[in-house]
Amino acid sequence: MSIEVLSTEETEDVLAANVVGRIGCHAGGRTYVVPIIYAYESGSVYVASVEGRKIRMMRENPEVCFEVDERGETGGWRSAIADGTYVELDAEGSELALDLLAKRFGRERGTRPPAAEGSETVCFRIDLREPSGRAVRR
Amino acid sequence: MSIEVLSTEETEDVLAANVVGRIGCHAGGRTYVVPIIYAYESGSVYVASVEGRKIRMMRENPEVCFEVDERGETGGWRSAIADGTYVELDAEGSELALDLLAKRFGRERGTRPPAAEGSETVCFRIDLREPSGRAVRR
Repeated sequence: MSIEVLSTEETEDVLAANVVGRIGCHAGGRTYVVPIIYAYESGSVYVASVEGRKIRMMRENPEVCFEVDERGETGGWRSAIADGTYVELDAEGSELALDLLAKRFGRERGTRPPAAEGSETVCFRIDLREPSGRAVRR
Repeated sequence: MSIEVLSTEETEDVLAANVVGRIGCHAGGRTYVVPIIYAYESGSVYVASVEGRKIRMMRENPEVCFEVDERGETGGWRSAIADGTYVELDAEGSELALDLLAKRFGRERGTRPPAAEGSETVCFRIDLREPSGRAVRR
């Protein structure tokens, strides 16, 4: 098995081809990794979330790590990992995020699932810095 | 969409049913999330890795987060997340780890892929604390 370093272009492709990634954040001495659904656009990932632990942690410490991995059908895999900064979006930014997510998922805005009852939707983006990619081809 | 909290038993099932997870670690002011292949056994995940950034970081700060997520064919998903502690394994522990991994992957020990050239295999386990599980059924 040899691990291959991906080009910038292929790393970008891993980010753009997937919709589930994970954010790693750290605050109060604890590290937390949480899966999120995202839309990738021009070096940032856009997320619509509900208030909760990850949002509280990223408000406290906006420096995070973003990770995506995918498995091929023949047992190979590709991954992309980047340091990034959490940016919470205002109303205008949230509109953009929701449009990107709707476009990515091929749904009309009106049909997106409502947030869990009693919770508020928080839209944010993670601005990625120098994503690096790895792959094992099989 | 409503997010369901999984029972202890089903959370355990998510951990046992999967083989790819992610470790989130934090050292020197940076958070890092990295995908790993693991075998789950009695509250711990066992990993055989090569020396590198994640090993250096976990030696510096053994308090980590472990995450697994899986998507169902109909668009639902399950995830398990736990705080955990990195424990590097000695020769005897490494034998156990490699046996668990071989068993999990149904391979004979002799046939496991060699580590990347010039790098050394490091076996470790993450002892998980109170894994929590979430699911969306669709």
